[in-house]
Amino acid sequence: MILIDGKKVASDLKQQLKKQLEPHIAAGKTCGLAVIIAGEDPASKVYVRNKINSCAEVGIKSFHYELPSDVSEKEITDIIEELNANKDVYGILVQLPLPKGIDERKILSKIDPQKDVDGFSPFQMGKLVLGEKCFPSCTPGGVMELLKYYSIPVAGKKAVVIGRSNTVGKPMALMLLKQNATVTVCHSKTENIGKIAAEADILVVAIGKPHFVTADMVKDGAVVVDVGINRVDGKLCGDVDYENVKDKCSYITPVPGGVGPMTVAMLMKNTVDAFLENV
Amino acid sequence: MILIDGKKVASDLKQQLKKQLEPHIAAGKTCGLAVIIAGEDPASKVYVRNKINSCAEVGIKSFHYELPSDVSEKEITDIIEELNANKDVYGILVQLPLPKGIDERKILSKIDPQKDVDGFSPFQMGKLVLGEKCFPSCTPGGVMELLKYYSIPVAGKKAVVIGRSNTVGKPMALMLLKQNATVTVCHSKTENIGKIAAEADILVVAIGKPHFVTADMVKDGAVVVDVGINRVDGKLCGDVDYENVKDKCSYITPVPGGVGPMTVAMLMKNTVDAFLENV
Repeated sequence: MILIDGKKVASDLKQQLKKQLEPHIAAGKTCGLAVIIAGEDPASKVYVRNKINSCAEVGIKSFHYELPSDVSEKEITDIIEELNANKDVYGILVQLPLPKGIDERKILSKIDPQKDVDGFSPFQMGKLVLGEKCFPSCTPGGVMELLKYYSIPVAGKKAVVIGRSNTVGKPMALMLLKQNATVTVCHSKTENIGKIAAEADILVVAIGKPHFVTADMVKDGAVVVDVGINRVDGKLCGDVDYENVKDKCSYITPVPGGVGPMTVAMLMKNTVDAFLENV
Repeated sequence: MILIDGKKVASDLKQQLKKQLEPHIAAGKTCGLAVIIAGEDPASKVYVRNKINSCAEVGIKSFHYELPSDVSEKEITDIIEELNANKDVYGILVQLPLPKGIDERKILSKIDPQKDVDGFSPFQMGKLVLGEKCFPSCTPGGVMELLKYYSIPVAGKKAVVIGRSNTVGKPMALMLLKQNATVTVCHSKTENIGKIAAEADILVVAIGKPHFVTADMVKDGAVVVDVGINRVDGKLCGDVDYENVKDKCSYITPVPGGVGPMTVAMLMKNTVDAFLENV
């Protein structure tokens, strides 16, 4: 069994992005990523701090807006419009959740889709379906980077994705399909989910239930990618019963330290890609 | 075995749309659909005539542009921009293929995504992924209408889609997933495609190979939807070996007369929906 080291892959990716940016920064260019956060959600604050630190590592300039929880839609929209027009800003993201009473969809729809480095807009998601160049959603995009880094073959393999969220399951399935896997998407309404999972060469789990995938649901030699992050008795764990599953796998991602670090790294990649394409 | 009668379902749907439009037409409103065709592709001409006839049936006003094969990108773009601005036009479609030398993607990207009743634009396709209200691509949308018409249960069923085109396979999988099927997408790189197909409760075939699906690939009692239209020895046939498969099925679509008539009917539906939402 090989443990997939997401920390190392994320760190290598960020080093590589830094090298790509360096000559442009030296030439006086700015590659900016703007993050808007409103209210006092503590998890959001941690995540935003993470993003800002990663920007510093890579050489991306952070544009950072911390707004009070009683901010109005108009105030957020005004900032977004200013950022849409700012030539130094190549990526804009609004940290969710927004305070109550604010229409998140409406706010998100104000972001110039060309600067939607989160890849959540209809425009970017549609380009993903159509197989066009796009900003892939960061978490499933990170999973694909992990598979690539470890030279894990995808074409012709049976891939099973458990979970069908807009941010992970659905884009994950589309990305695996693009790489020529035969893809099955399972979810809460799926019957015999264990039997279907047990046929997977590549099993991606993003259902948000601790220890959901047990050893009997995993084929010998499967690649298991655990996107879940749950807190049980104060400890982080994934959606996979790691201790009992790991020895059956050819590759497995731990939680934490597997998929997690890739999300922010992919956000950096999308931002740098936006910059390099338009600089 | 029940034969799914696409002609009847399409005709019923068009009658229903006609009724929805009638009071608005009587009140002097116009529900317009614009079709742009360039060059002399005979299949396109047949299809466009079909569309025009269906518009007449439903009460949609056709705006019809037949352009020579040496038309310039600028000329087509100018027409699209005029149609984008025309308040009577709720849907715009450009019949493909366009003449050689014309950049189809570029032309299609000029259509106001709110008027993209074909549902092929990144914006509409992305809304489909995200589960938002959208214009579903007409062929897979038509398949969903057929399943609904015959009250065929989808939730919890194993659906297998053979083919992963942008116009059928991928949106089909997303629509079945939205209706709570467990969905597998197979394609040219899939191994053991017969075995996977044989597990399907609902099998949708859109691979463009005559008689590709043989009896051994179909489970007893399966619902088989054949999206293929092939011409063999001058006769139309689907992707399913109909004669040998039909008796194993609970429901099957014939070719012609199954999915085919639904495509244009769904185009009418998308246009009427666009009208009703904005009138």
